[in-house]
Amino acid sequence: MKVLALDTSNQPLSVAVMKDHQVLATTTVTTTKKHAAHLLPIINASMKAAQFEPEDLDRVIVADGPGSYTGIRVSVTAAKTLAETLHIELVGVSSLATIAANVPVEGQLVAVLFDGRNDNVFAGVYRIKNGAPENVIADQHIAFEKLLPQIKKLGEPVVVLGDLAAFKTRLDSQLKEHFISYPQENSLPSAVQLGRLGESLKPVTDINAFVPRYLRLTKAEADWQRQHPKEDNRDYVEKV
Amino acid sequence: MKVLALDTSNQPLSVAVMKDHQVLATTTVTTTKKHAAHLLPIINASMKAAQFEPEDLDRVIVADGPGSYTGIRVSVTAAKTLAETLHIELVGVSSLATIAANVPVEGQLVAVLFDGRNDNVFAGVYRIKNGAPENVIADQHIAFEKLLPQIKKLGEPVVVLGDLAAFKTRLDSQLKEHFISYPQENSLPSAVQLGRLGESLKPVTDINAFVPRYLRLTKAEADWQRQHPKEDNRDYVEKV
Repeated sequence: MKVLALDTSNQPLSVAVMKDHQVLATTTVTTTKKHAAHLLPIINASMKAAQFEPEDLDRVIVADGPGSYTGIRVSVTAAKTLAETLHIELVGVSSLATIAANVPVEGQLVAVLFDGRNDNVFAGVYRIKNGAPENVIADQHIAFEKLLPQIKKLGEPVVVLGDLAAFKTRLDSQLKEHFISYPQENSLPSAVQLGRLGESLKPVTDINAFVPRYLRLTKAEADWQRQHPKEDNRDYVEKV
Repeated sequence: MKVLALDTSNQPLSVAVMKDHQVLATTTVTTTKKHAAHLLPIINASMKAAQFEPEDLDRVIVADGPGSYTGIRVSVTAAKTLAETLHIELVGVSSLATIAANVPVEGQLVAVLFDGRNDNVFAGVYRIKNGAPENVIADQHIAFEKLLPQIKKLGEPVVVLGDLAAFKTRLDSQLKEHFISYPQENSLPSAVQLGRLGESLKPVTDINAFVPRYLRLTKAEADWQRQHPKEDNRDYVEKV
C-alpha cells in the first residue's frame, strides 16, 4: 500500500511517503507558521524523492486533531481534496496518538499533552499494544488538575510526551518515580508514525463528511450556541 | 549551537538542521542510491526551511561509519569540505551509535547490526546512559556467530536494530525472551539523533586528518597489504 501521511496539527509540519510500512521519504519542519504555504511544496518534494506520481497513491492519512484550529484545517483540507480528486482512501488518526506512537516499548503507558492554555490540556493516555497506542484515558480537553489524579490512579510508570513546560513540576511531584521523560525529540510528531498507524486502520466511508476532532469549541461557536440554545448542537463538546 | 547533521553511511540519506538540540528541519530519503547527487540539494532545502545561511552554522556532524564505503565517503567529504570552508567545528559519530540513539529507554541494552555479507556484521552493543548510547561491546566487523554468544553472555534484555533479516531466527532462538524487537522504522538512521549526540561531543582537532571508521579493509587494500608486508599499515583492521 502506497500512502501519503500529513500532520500540521501543531507548529511542526511533517510529511511522509511510505510503501507497505517502509519509509520512502519524510520531512519535518518546525520553523514555519505558514503551513498553508509550505505543505504542498513539501508534499511535492517528498513524492518526487519517493519517485511517486499522485495517481500511484492508495491512501492519504492525516492527523485530524486535536491541535491548532488553523493548523488542523490545513492538512485535513489538503487530505480531503487529495482523496476526493485522486479517488483514494482517507484515514484520520488522532494527533495525540501520532505522538504516542513514537514510544516503541510494548505495554508501556504513554500520556500526551498539548497545552490548551489556562491550565487546560488536550490529552490522551495510551498503552502501546502490538506496536500501536490504544486509549486508556480518552482524548479530551480537560483541566490539567483533573487529569493528573486520573493518571496517578493508574499506578504505573508513564512516559509523558508533548508540551511539558507548564506541567513538568507537578508531574514530577505527583507521579514521582512513575513519571518517565524521554529526550525531547520524541515529543515531535512524525508523519512516519502517523503513516504506520494509518496504514492499519479502516478508511472513512464519507470523505466529504469527514471533520477534524477539535475537542473544544471555538469561542465563536460557543457564543453562537449560547445565543441559539434550541439548535441542534451536533458538534457539542463538553466545556472544561 | 546551530548544527547541520548528515548521514549517508547506508542506503538511507538523512539530513537535519538543529539549534540547541531543537529540530528545525529534517529530511530522510531511502529511495536513492545516488547520495552524491541528492545530498547537497537536500542540505540546501533543509537550511532554507530552517532559515539558516551557511555562515550561521557552528558545527557539522557526520555519521562516519561503519557502512557502505561509497556512502560514508559522500557525507564525510561533504562534512569536511563544509567545516574547512566555513571554519566551523566537525564532529564524527558512529553510524551504529546513531541508530542505537533511536532507543529512548534509559539503561536499555541495544545491539545494532549492519549486514557485512558472508554472515559477518558491522556491529556495536550499547547501553543508553543519560539519553546517549555508550559502547558495552565495541563497534567492530565480526562474524555473527562470534558476536551472538557475547550478547547472550550479557544476560539482559537487548533491543536489536539494523539489518535483522539474516539474523532474526538465530537471535530469537539464542536470546529467547531477552531478544526485543522494535517497529522497523526504529532501525532507520535519523540525522536528528545524530545531531543530538554530536552536539555534546568534542569536535575533531584536525579536520584534514579526519577519516571514516570503515572497520574493514577494502579488497584492494587487503591485496595491497598482502603484497607489501613490510609497509606501515596504519589503517590495519583485524580481518574476521
